[in-house]
Amino acid sequence: MSSYCFGIDVGGTSVKCGLFKTDGTLVEKWEIPTRRENNGDKILPDVGDTINNKIKERNLDKKDIAGVGIGIPGPVNGKGEVERAVNLYWGFKAVSKEIEEYTGLPAKAGNDANVAALGEAWKGAAAGAQNVILVTLGTGVGGGIIVDGKIVAGEHGAGGEIGHAMVLRGEKEKCNCGNHGCLEQYASATGIVRVAGRKLAETDEDSVLRSLSNITAKDVLDAFKAGDKVAIDIMEYVGDLLGGALSGFAAVVDPEAIVIGGGVSKAGQPLIDCIQKYYREYAFPSCKNTRMLIATLGNDAGIYGAAKMVL
Amino acid sequence: MSSYCFGIDVGGTSVKCGLFKTDGTLVEKWEIPTRRENNGDKILPDVGDTINNKIKERNLDKKDIAGVGIGIPGPVNGKGEVERAVNLYWGFKAVSKEIEEYTGLPAKAGNDANVAALGEAWKGAAAGAQNVILVTLGTGVGGGIIVDGKIVAGEHGAGGEIGHAMVLRGEKEKCNCGNHGCLEQYASATGIVRVAGRKLAETDEDSVLRSLSNITAKDVLDAFKAGDKVAIDIMEYVGDLLGGALSGFAAVVDPEAIVIGGGVSKAGQPLIDCIQKYYREYAFPSCKNTRMLIATLGNDAGIYGAAKMVL
Repeated sequence: MSSYCFGIDVGGTSVKCGLFKTDGTLVEKWEIPTRRENNGDKILPDVGDTINNKIKERNLDKKDIAGVGIGIPGPVNGKGEVERAVNLYWGFKAVSKEIEEYTGLPAKAGNDANVAALGEAWKGAAAGAQNVILVTLGTGVGGGIIVDGKIVAGEHGAGGEIGHAMVLRGEKEKCNCGNHGCLEQYASATGIVRVAGRKLAETDEDSVLRSLSNITAKDVLDAFKAGDKVAIDIMEYVGDLLGGALSGFAAVVDPEAIVIGGGVSKAGQPLIDCIQKYYREYAFPSCKNTRMLIATLGNDAGIYGAAKMVL
Repeated sequence: MSSYCFGIDVGGTSVKCGLFKTDGTLVEKWEIPTRRENNGDKILPDVGDTINNKIKERNLDKKDIAGVGIGIPGPVNGKGEVERAVNLYWGFKAVSKEIEEYTGLPAKAGNDANVAALGEAWKGAAAGAQNVILVTLGTGVGGGIIVDGKIVAGEHGAGGEIGHAMVLRGEKEKCNCGNHGCLEQYASATGIVRVAGRKLAETDEDSVLRSLSNITAKDVLDAFKAGDKVAIDIMEYVGDLLGGALSGFAAVVDPEAIVIGGGVSKAGQPLIDCIQKYYREYAFPSCKNTRMLIATLGNDAGIYGAAKMVL
């Protein structure tokens, strides 16, 4: 059996890299810049180089390395191919194949949100769970579905695109995906700010949020935790939409745990409580007590999950 | 490699049995009554007997039989155990283990709706697909999720319980599961009748449905296909809720095909068109063209899927 593996997480500005023992111990992590010029055609060669250099530097034997897992910000099909990754300026790219050529190691590519879900299921909040839903509340809403310990990539690489489940009919504003009423429009950091604007306009109720010129999601969450009535209204509204959506996803895959990640999840247990209240109201009876947890690996979820893919 | 396998589908009144070749050819099918007396403790012995008799009758060699798959109307966990199956008057039952003891063959139990989904993915409407959502519109709404060719059973055996995804807030009537606003309350045969009652009460519009004393789902669907304006309103409402729900499920697992089964699905292509119109409005862009198909195996889906479980 191999002793090592690499987990790579390609982001828009930097590539996070991890050398792991196969038991999940992180041996070393480092970053390299994401060179997006020329349609990002240096990104994968750079990844190959940094892996080869690390192998040389540490005097590792390639036979002792299980492979390279790599997370990509875009849909990845079952063959490890990308049709398009907008943030990297990529068109078609056979990611797994290229990395195998550059490194001579087995490689496996996956969508970054899916890969992060695998990381949280392996060594994070839901460590050891075989069936997990991860929802990432950041600038957008991402997600990843783990069934039987494996990523659900889906037919078009859209498995886990739960930020674009429609949760509200009649929404006038467009989501980035072109649809209307997507979960992302309410439960992302941007979405929370949008909901805040609407709620503040609807009521005359006093609120600490009124004194701020540029409200952020953190402002709303801080005010929510401090007991501000309008902020509570805002988060109850978000919790209702998010808890309702999660209960529907749970009716599909019935996970052991639901993990909440991304910047918004820094609000911690009060956020969980707010989502869970609605989740439990709507969830199928046998799923009502499914664990709901805050993600623990933060930005490292991607390298952990990527490493796990090749084990 | 084995040549044969058995597929068993336990229903509330009869047990459907199939002897298959491992390539999926149905060699023979037959039924035995479901003896529910004494907490249904004869049901599994009866299944064992009918299999052993068939083996004797056909002079088969047990070494040449891959095993016995069995679908149960209730949640089944990964070990093939049932905590409770209300329709069979069962408490705890180690189904796979019992069938293995009675027959001396490897056995695998699954929830009947999940097993039917596997049947449709193997030899039915979505033959050959590895990733499928089946929704069964019958008295209730059941479902099954196939990922990578396998049933998603879920942590509590509630994988595919998509009939109990909440699709409408503020519903006053209770679903059989105890929640409010479940998909089943609108898209099942019973649900369509309920929606019809509401729509007819809301409007004075003329409709063929008004002359009927006891409206059935078939009446509504026939009137819908004949162009009755109120019936169209009813089915547009149902199609909106169902299409919206399916688009959310597709954002979770991104299937190759969505299969619509159950008695309601006999309405055929006009029903698909009505659901698909809303599905495409709400679905994540890369899932908008996912195939939506009418189930083709009817009541045989269960024995096909059960057989597939042991292959």
